[in-house]
Amino acid sequence: MSGNTFGTLYCVTSFGESHGPAYGGVVDGCPPGLALSAADIQKELDRRKPGASRHVTQRRESDAIEILSGLYEGRTTGTAIGFLIRNEDSRPKDYSAIAEKFRPGHADYTYWQKYGIRDARGGGRASARETAVRVAAGAIAKKWLAERYSVSINGYLAQVGALRIPFRSWEDAQSNAFFAADSSMVEQLERFMDELRASGDSCGARVNVVAQRVPVGWGEPVYGRLDADIAWAMMSINAVKGVEIGAGFESVAQKGSEHGDEMTPQGFASNNNGGVLGGISTGQDVTVSLALKPTSSIRLPRRTIDVRGAATMIETTGRHDPCVGLRATPIAEAMLACVLMDHALRHRAQCGDVTPPTRLG
Amino acid sequence: MSGNTFGTLYCVTSFGESHGPAYGGVVDGCPPGLALSAADIQKELDRRKPGASRHVTQRRESDAIEILSGLYEGRTTGTAIGFLIRNEDSRPKDYSAIAEKFRPGHADYTYWQKYGIRDARGGGRASARETAVRVAAGAIAKKWLAERYSVSINGYLAQVGALRIPFRSWEDAQSNAFFAADSSMVEQLERFMDELRASGDSCGARVNVVAQRVPVGWGEPVYGRLDADIAWAMMSINAVKGVEIGAGFESVAQKGSEHGDEMTPQGFASNNNGGVLGGISTGQDVTVSLALKPTSSIRLPRRTIDVRGAATMIETTGRHDPCVGLRATPIAEAMLACVLMDHALRHRAQCGDVTPPTRLG
Amino acid sequence: MSGNTFGTLYCVTSFGESHGPAYGGVVDGCPPGLALSAADIQKELDRRKPGASRHVTQRRESDAIEILSGLYEGRTTGTAIGFLIRNEDSRPKDYSAIAEKFRPGHADYTYWQKYGIRDARGGGRASARETAVRVAAGAIAKKWLAERYSVSINGYLAQVGALRIPFRSWEDAQSNAFFAADSSMVEQLERFMDELRASGDSCGARVNVVAQRVPVGWGEPVYGRLDADIAWAMMSINAVKGVEIGAGFESVAQKGSEHGDEMTPQGFASNNNGGVLGGISTGQDVTVSLALKPTSSIRLPRRTIDVRGAATMIETTGRHDPCVGLRATPIAEAMLACVLMDHALRHRAQCGDVTPPTRLG
Amino acid sequence: MSGNTFGTLYCVTSFGESHGPAYGGVVDGCPPGLALSAADIQKELDRRKPGASRHVTQRRESDAIEILSGLYEGRTTGTAIGFLIRNEDSRPKDYSAIAEKFRPGHADYTYWQKYGIRDARGGGRASARETAVRVAAGAIAKKWLAERYSVSINGYLAQVGALRIPFRSWEDAQSNAFFAADSSMVEQLERFMDELRASGDSCGARVNVVAQRVPVGWGEPVYGRLDADIAWAMMSINAVKGVEIGAGFESVAQKGSEHGDEMTPQGFASNNNGGVLGGISTGQDVTVSLALKPTSSIRLPRRTIDVRGAATMIETTGRHDPCVGLRATPIAEAMLACVLMDHALRHRAQCGDVTPPTRLG
Repeated sequence: MSGNTFGTLYCVTSFGESHGPAYGGVVDGCPPGLALSAADIQKELDRRKPGASRHVTQRRESDAIEILSGLYEGRTTGTAIGFLIRNEDSRPKDYSAIAEKFRPGHADYTYWQKYGIRDARGGGRASARETAVRVAAGAIAKKWLAERYSVSINGYLAQVGALRIPFRSWEDAQSNAFFAADSSMVEQLERFMDELRASGDSCGARVNVVAQRVPVGWGEPVYGRLDADIAWAMMSINAVKGVEIGAGFESVAQKGSEHGDEMTPQGFASNNNGGVLGGISTGQDVTVSLALKPTSSIRLPRRTIDVRGAATMIETTGRHDPCVGLRATPIAEAMLACVLMDHALRHRAQCGDVTPPTRLG
Repeated sequence: MSGNTFGTLYCVTSFGESHGPAYGGVVDGCPPGLALSAADIQKELDRRKPGASRHVTQRRESDAIEILSGLYEGRTTGTAIGFLIRNEDSRPKDYSAIAEKFRPGHADYTYWQKYGIRDARGGGRASARETAVRVAAGAIAKKWLAERYSVSINGYLAQVGALRIPFRSWEDAQSNAFFAADSSMVEQLERFMDELRASGDSCGARVNVVAQRVPVGWGEPVYGRLDADIAWAMMSINAVKGVEIGAGFESVAQKGSEHGDEMTPQGFASNNNGGVLGGISTGQDVTVSLALKPTSSIRLPRRTIDVRGAATMIETTGRHDPCVGLRATPIAEAMLACVLMDHALRHRAQCGDVTPPTRLG
Repeated sequence: MSGNTFGTLYCVTSFGESHGPAYGGVVDGCPPGLALSAADIQKELDRRKPGASRHVTQRRESDAIEILSGLYEGRTTGTAIGFLIRNEDSRPKDYSAIAEKFRPGHADYTYWQKYGIRDARGGGRASARETAVRVAAGAIAKKWLAERYSVSINGYLAQVGALRIPFRSWEDAQSNAFFAADSSMVEQLERFMDELRASGDSCGARVNVVAQRVPVGWGEPVYGRLDADIAWAMMSINAVKGVEIGAGFESVAQKGSEHGDEMTPQGFASNNNGGVLGGISTGQDVTVSLALKPTSSIRLPRRTIDVRGAATMIETTGRHDPCVGLRATPIAEAMLACVLMDHALRHRAQCGDVTPPTRLG
Repeated sequence: MSGNTFGTLYCVTSFGESHGPAYGGVVDGCPPGLALSAADIQKELDRRKPGASRHVTQRRESDAIEILSGLYEGRTTGTAIGFLIRNEDSRPKDYSAIAEKFRPGHADYTYWQKYGIRDARGGGRASARETAVRVAAGAIAKKWLAERYSVSINGYLAQVGALRIPFRSWEDAQSNAFFAADSSMVEQLERFMDELRASGDSCGARVNVVAQRVPVGWGEPVYGRLDADIAWAMMSINAVKGVEIGAGFESVAQKGSEHGDEMTPQGFASNNNGGVLGGISTGQDVTVSLALKPTSSIRLPRRTIDVRGAATMIETTGRHDPCVGLRATPIAEAMLACVLMDHALRHRAQCGDVTPPTRLG
């Protein structure tokens, strides 16, 4: 299927551009009977929305969701859930200065070459505003996974530029605009971001996401692996350049006797595998880490070319996040939720009659 | 679709188990008229096959391919290409000692929990022997991509355990059984592997893959991104725990002024993005890096449980690669080839009429 | 993928219920550069919309389309085209009398059993109002097929109840609200419909659709057959119970020497095959015929049960088409357009390099 | 996905040509734990195989199946089931006389035009021998549906040429080589076929298929309708030109008061809808009827053209069924089984938690 839909059973379709009238999406395959309201989704959208602090883009969007179908008397009916998120603060004129140039690191050039046509206003379809649709779809998945299987999915900002942020608690991660899992780092983060913004430059980030209480058995062998689908989901997020499951790149230097998680009657003794073995969930936490590149749109002057191929310089003003990673946590959570939900449904389709043998723990 | 098929237009279906009669696959969607023989595929299978050196499993398999359909007078007809690779040296008895235990780090436990049934012989469907099917499918894709677009896809072993192997040349990478791109490292690698094997332990590895001369424009926005599909493809390979495109995790600590690849009339000035921007190929090299975990089956004793949930110890003898990464290079190349071919076809489906604007370089 | 999306490359996703706020859809995979406006789509929607004559439902809907994405300066960009059609004249109260009963022949009972929940207002998701989304998606396909390949797709009403309507001309078919291809029949049709409406009963219909100038070569063997996908598309339209390609059920009594279309240097001598052989278009007209059952919602009293399983009687008032077939022509055209467009794209993906051998005609 | 795979969760992939070494397939998504042997499949293959009577092709094929994967100790493991059916009696030389001509009514011309290349030996991929793969896949589906839901799927030959064959009993249908559900017709059928064969001509047929004990609730609204998928499945069978569900084309002349099946506490009072309302199964028998065109390969001389476009005559000798419909019954049953199984799995994926409200009957 085409590139604006994903999922096998829990299917998400997305549309919209940064400076068009609206974003929207269709969530198909949700089981019937789930209590769901716009507020359930709005809560997650508000975690992602712009303008929440001085460290992110100052574009003012309420990101208010309008649900158009798939609900009846407050419950999902099992049919397609369509929804809209109107753009309220688009300023296409901000882009007139750069409409004929390509921002280094941005998708301007590739869209133009692929399609022979380009919506230059705010990146058009390539804008990270599209991730609101993912967050909405993920909110529904999160709710179902929590109610049906007690799965909870949480993420945090683990690194900004060279600054590492240790994990202290999930409460911390939810208590500050950075999604820092150690609140004591917030002041340092604010200083870091203030300096970054002042410099006109941008920086990268690392975000970690964890799904807890995922039952053993989700995921399919070979090409339908849970970890492969998670890798796809994370790399499909704007600006992501790397994905790790469990020990990730640290596995390279590990020995087998160190990496292979021993098993005891009480459960696994460690979790280097990140909750997935052979593409199938183990019952441990599913742990994922992603690398986000620095924002491409920066104020500092950079060499580029124009649509005629001539050399020129570009400085991107407009309103941009100096670190896209700061708002990536809810997006990564949402994508992980969608993948898990898809596999939860796929698993019970095929293995609904399996009486699971004695389990660990 | 189910978990043993992948691809939208260039579709690969796989079957087979480590100690069953055969592996096989179906490649569907290949354009007609491609000159193709079993030898074209065998060449790639031989790069992956076991028994090639003392550093890999001593299982003796010719991995001889039998093409069963889809060819007529030496050319592809456009219909499904079915093929078989018989297992010749299976020794199911090797596994009787561990049939009732779970190898730490292996898929034994998850398959058993998911399906309530488990083919314990050599990992069954979870065995890395399945990657022969991928290599066969990739060989066809490689040939078509080379002939139609002059794309070439090559990989090399970049790290084994803590030992880094620099890139010197593609000729080097093809001249030794390690796929080391610096032949002067071979002696050191042999020593390293001899010691590892003697220790009864295993180690991880890093493999890099590069696709050269990929035209600008392949890949689709949002969910059909080229890099997302590559991430999926790499993470679907047995033992892979991390994937990077371009600068990968180094992006985290980079500044935007450093990461964003400047453009000049002669082309991009750098390639931090790894040949993909906004999910669409830029025309630069597509660069991918993957982390492979250490082999799970090791001789050293490890704590585990048996099928009744009781604590026990396990030592895996049998025939295993002490570093699965040593044979991963052709597999990673094959998966990259399949993804690129799928997107080449998808691109010309939608954008076959686009007259590309002036290009760089 | 789930049940509200169809297509491999030209993908259509649909949402909305009869008495919810809106219907909408997403068309994904349209080639870039196609000139497209809301008016292009509105034109087709107006052919389907209710209230056009006294013979169809008196529900008053403008079926005005709002395009939300995928266009830039009047041309398609190649990204997802999202659109909305607001419901303006819903009267959920009309259904309170039958909310606890099942209309014979209607999907009330099956939705309720499948999902355990049911939107009783106007059939909810099962309402034929959903076909507006198909018509919108088909309008885009029709335009592209016409501009790129000169394909034209037209349908007509061939039978209403026992009354057969011969084909005289395409002009006739477009000149009356019945889509009757013989205008001289219009008076008789009006009388027939007036009597039907007065009787409180409903009737079935046959609709024929023809695609002209379809190039030879579209469609794929075995499971990707053009005719199989057309059969799917037609049977997916509300109320359709039968589909024929070419000679259809007349083939049963034909001899091979009569059915098999002879070939001459000037072309095929007949078209029993309806433009498809072996699942691939022949270059002749693609001819399709469909049977639509009588409307289920009728005023005449009928035996049924209520939600508690007790026997009861039902009379459906509300506003309903006494013959759904009267408005089916644009819908059948739209579905045929979508299938043909999907296969046009698939064909050039795989066979874009084939130099076609000498053709007929 | 490409044209040699079908299904969303129960996926079937097929390969092979009439005069190549073998046919084969992959069935993916079958639940684990199903007792399955080659004999279970062979039984169904033997119902379809050629050479069973003097009225079908005299090609001698044992159609012996070799299962290559997906089973362990006599049970399905949940992974891909690969299988092979070797061709044993191919005679490619039979086709040398017609290699440069196109048989009227056959796919020769369209394959050649689509792909620019053509395997002329026995129709290559277009041969009806491919249906053996469908029958094998259907045999597995039938077994699972029978054991899990007591569904039984049976077909019969309802008409040959102008000769109608009434339904008397399922026992009759299984007692003769014609699948005639009235054994008293067998003699008449043999006479009819003898005359047909002597004449050098061929004829069409009608086959009916019925699935009994299908639970209410299978199928999805709008585009994932059970009846639409059945229509696709039937029209994908070689030579099928028409498909009906329930009353089919008789619906055209029916009144709503006649067609709409009334409901009583004991169940539906009739089954005009053929067991599907709104795309979802009702719990009644699913009834399907298909039209098969006359065999294209006949001995009588016919006008055609050669590969250079010149007018010529063709007489097809070789070994062909004079009525392909005679062997179509097991194929239609198999395709219906595959579609039902796919929807059984999809239904429990989405609605596995629905407690069904009080049911009829």
